[in-house]
Amino acid sequence: MTKQRLSLYDTTLRDGQQTQGVQFSTEEKHLIAKSLDALGVDYIEGGWPGANPTDSAFFDEAPQTRARMTAFGMTKRKGMSAQNDDVLAAVLNANTASVCLVGKTHEFHVHTALGITLDENTENIAKSIAHLVAQGREALFDAEHFFDGYKANPDYALEAIRAAYDAGARWIVLCDTNGGTLPAEIGRITAEVIAAGIEGSRLGIHTHDDTENAVACTLAAVDAGVRQIQGTLNGLGERCGNANLTALIPILKLKEPYASLYETGVSDAALQGLTRTSRMLDEILNRVPMKQAGFVGSSAFAHKAGLHASAILKDPSTYEHVDPAVVGNTRIIPMSNQAGQSNLRRRLEVAGLVVAKGDPALAQILDEVKAREGIGYSYDTAQASFELLARSVLGQMPDLFEVKRYRVTVERRKNKYDQMISLSEAVVVVKVDGEKRLSVSESMDEAGSDRGPVNALSKALVKDLGQYSALLEGWRLVDFKVRITQGGTEAVTRVTIDSEDAQGRRWSTVGVSANIVDASFEALLDAIRWKLIRDKGAANAG
Amino acid sequence: MTKQRLSLYDTTLRDGQQTQGVQFSTEEKHLIAKSLDALGVDYIEGGWPGANPTDSAFFDEAPQTRARMTAFGMTKRKGMSAQNDDVLAAVLNANTASVCLVGKTHEFHVHTALGITLDENTENIAKSIAHLVAQGREALFDAEHFFDGYKANPDYALEAIRAAYDAGARWIVLCDTNGGTLPAEIGRITAEVIAAGIEGSRLGIHTHDDTENAVACTLAAVDAGVRQIQGTLNGLGERCGNANLTALIPILKLKEPYASLYETGVSDAALQGLTRTSRMLDEILNRVPMKQAGFVGSSAFAHKAGLHASAILKDPSTYEHVDPAVVGNTRIIPMSNQAGQSNLRRRLEVAGLVVAKGDPALAQILDEVKAREGIGYSYDTAQASFELLARSVLGQMPDLFEVKRYRVTVERRKNKYDQMISLSEAVVVVKVDGEKRLSVSESMDEAGSDRGPVNALSKALVKDLGQYSALLEGWRLVDFKVRITQGGTEAVTRVTIDSEDAQGRRWSTVGVSANIVDASFEALLDAIRWKLIRDKGAANAG
Repeated sequence: MTKQRLSLYDTTLRDGQQTQGVQFSTEEKHLIAKSLDALGVDYIEGGWPGANPTDSAFFDEAPQTRARMTAFGMTKRKGMSAQNDDVLAAVLNANTASVCLVGKTHEFHVHTALGITLDENTENIAKSIAHLVAQGREALFDAEHFFDGYKANPDYALEAIRAAYDAGARWIVLCDTNGGTLPAEIGRITAEVIAAGIEGSRLGIHTHDDTENAVACTLAAVDAGVRQIQGTLNGLGERCGNANLTALIPILKLKEPYASLYETGVSDAALQGLTRTSRMLDEILNRVPMKQAGFVGSSAFAHKAGLHASAILKDPSTYEHVDPAVVGNTRIIPMSNQAGQSNLRRRLEVAGLVVAKGDPALAQILDEVKAREGIGYSYDTAQASFELLARSVLGQMPDLFEVKRYRVTVERRKNKYDQMISLSEAVVVVKVDGEKRLSVSESMDEAGSDRGPVNALSKALVKDLGQYSALLEGWRLVDFKVRITQGGTEAVTRVTIDSEDAQGRRWSTVGVSANIVDASFEALLDAIRWKLIRDKGAANAG
Repeated sequence: MTKQRLSLYDTTLRDGQQTQGVQFSTEEKHLIAKSLDALGVDYIEGGWPGANPTDSAFFDEAPQTRARMTAFGMTKRKGMSAQNDDVLAAVLNANTASVCLVGKTHEFHVHTALGITLDENTENIAKSIAHLVAQGREALFDAEHFFDGYKANPDYALEAIRAAYDAGARWIVLCDTNGGTLPAEIGRITAEVIAAGIEGSRLGIHTHDDTENAVACTLAAVDAGVRQIQGTLNGLGERCGNANLTALIPILKLKEPYASLYETGVSDAALQGLTRTSRMLDEILNRVPMKQAGFVGSSAFAHKAGLHASAILKDPSTYEHVDPAVVGNTRIIPMSNQAGQSNLRRRLEVAGLVVAKGDPALAQILDEVKAREGIGYSYDTAQASFELLARSVLGQMPDLFEVKRYRVTVERRKNKYDQMISLSEAVVVVKVDGEKRLSVSESMDEAGSDRGPVNALSKALVKDLGQYSALLEGWRLVDFKVRITQGGTEAVTRVTIDSEDAQGRRWSTVGVSANIVDASFEALLDAIRWKLIRDKGAANAG
């Protein structure tokens, strides 16, 4: 059986920009467009030329892509011709091969938002699409509020999309603009549209996640016969976001019946880059990646329950619906007081530490983990600190350097211009290669994620670590979490630090103390030690 | 037509605890159980007694709830009777009215994970459920991997659940343990189970979000006839999480066809507490609330697109599928202050600040709140800081004291006994009653929630505040939360402090800075000012 081709239409750069707190620069839009192209989507909606300066600038120097670059706009307004509507002209002036125009299909909106008659609206749609076609462009029509419109007045909703269809739109995209329609209803209405004579091969679906059903709504429309899917990376978008392509793409490629029935422009190799693409977008937006995201989340293949973890060791398919490697993700078996020895061995293997089944060191490591969890540590996410702990129990902890003492001062006072300023200064004394070294560093009114004592300490710590300093270039703190927790009988502070190095590798470490600076320093030290041990040079030196 | 009753089974305290990075304390479990009970769920699965110390401790003093408190465990093991299985005995010893046991229904797992015959597994299920029933307990059976098992061997999967059904289990819960089954398949298989003679009124559904379809899979099972829904608050849970009750509850209560066909134990009033319940859970876990979450996310009713925002002003139903107020959420319209004024007046009244409707100060306060939220503040929980901000806009902020400067030093070094010790020392200079006062304080190896710089600063700050020092006796920090957040274009640190005074009164304040010590100090200052203003003496002095 030949597979049907599904078209993937990405609107991260347009609807994705409606996410609260998201504002792309033109340069960021270029970076994202290139990633989308590498992934293999068919269309990249670049924005609304004329509606805001960043979008116009993007199209002025739009990147060369295999995917069809598409400009977004709206159908012409009443009282002017398609040729004379300056808003529409700005969209066409972007000179893209494809143009997508949004228009009304819900009578309530025609009356309430536009204040025109239904016939006038139909004519605006027909004339606008015909204008695009006459200009030699591929035309797409986003049928706004289609499902709500169809429920209110099916005849008019169909008339509106038929106007675009008959005028030559390549794709009619059924939009659930308010995100309130549930999957079963999406499926039923889509089937009725096809039964009314609009071919599925010219239909698309655009859903929102307001009921957390955007992916399911999209699948229901595909089941009913649509052949284009609109969505965004990481489910960015207005309100709760658009249908998440980062989930839909692996579903279409890996899950039945989709894998057998359909094909897309995303290759197996590109699919392996999916996790990286998702994280890259978060990086650009400076958002913390969602751990629980399907397929690409860092927890998506984390097996915490003891029973699950022991079965995974026997056969990963016991608790994994797909192999994490095919989407470029990795399996994690977190350490926690729920886990047993098999879990532990698997986790040690990840760290390159092979310990035989039944080795008494396993019980010792588990005891040590439990004892430390009892005083407030958590090794659930802090895999790097767990590895160091295991190494020290196993006697495989290289002797890198020793911190003799440190001191950090935070001061808030007026400067000579009578402005209040803050200054953090840290002194760290280490012994490395038999030599004592003193370093001092300060943080003040500079760019960066932290201008406080932890930043000052981390800078002083790496400033002069002898042979190791070069290895630590490019190492930085990407996240810092603090929580008060119970450590035995008293409250203590637990600090978890996420680090990243120049190669883009990420790791997490933990520190605990009744003093937040001490806890932070402990997590910093673990972060550095882990990197030095993992990087060959240091391991040999150890 | 009479509505069918749907049973809601919450497993936040058990499967929710499998979330990577989540580790509830017993006290937190109590708090969450009370919130769930107020929400109106029918069952609260409290944990697995005997499997880990926190769960056992929770059941030892389980809270009194209207919801049925349920202990979780697994079916008896081969080679021992239900009476003699100590793991099962520990579950029964929790003395809950309802008990839920998980068992295998997938032949692959019976062989691979358990290493027993299919008949032995069937017997383990039947005997375990019969044992619960004989003990007078309500029995639930979690059919692990049911959908994968049914696809591999439908006869055995049905035989396994029929064993539990015939032994008297009140509910047979069909679990998609690996989260890989898509909604259409969930619907089809569930319908086949019912056609095979297992009544829908005794069937439940338990799904996971690995393909971001957990909510849709749950709805598909309800459509097919199941009458119990298992899920968690905020979709916590193993890997990508469980079906999200925070989305499912409003769907069932507000959206068709569910609102007309079914009823649940969640009242309209409780539904209005949904957003607060969701945020409270994040607060307990120190997680950043997901802005884009359906219904309860802070972006769920944020209308960023210009066309949307202007239509919303004409009629909110143009771009909202439900009214945010019914789930206790609020509309956000950038560029408009229309929304929120009545909310604001209510919140000011709580602080004893009466402002007339239409007073321009209301818009000013809203603007100030918004501007500060834009740079990283959050006034969701920090009511005391909100009051101070409102007072300063209203010109009702008494002049108490001025901090001229401070300095805090944290030092870690060896003492004379060659032990590593930490010491924090703070100097604070204030001007009070026209006089400059210098205070110094240190924290070292003493009991208390914090032996670090914040503790030292707070002690120095209150040490000599002239007329105010007496009022601050007994004031202490009871919680301290730190979060990295977005402040404009850069990451900043937000510190929230919970204070308690000698009278047992509690209040929360917030501070934001790129320097954690500065942010903490700001929250400390707010805490002190709020108390001084609230306590009569100081208000008169102001």
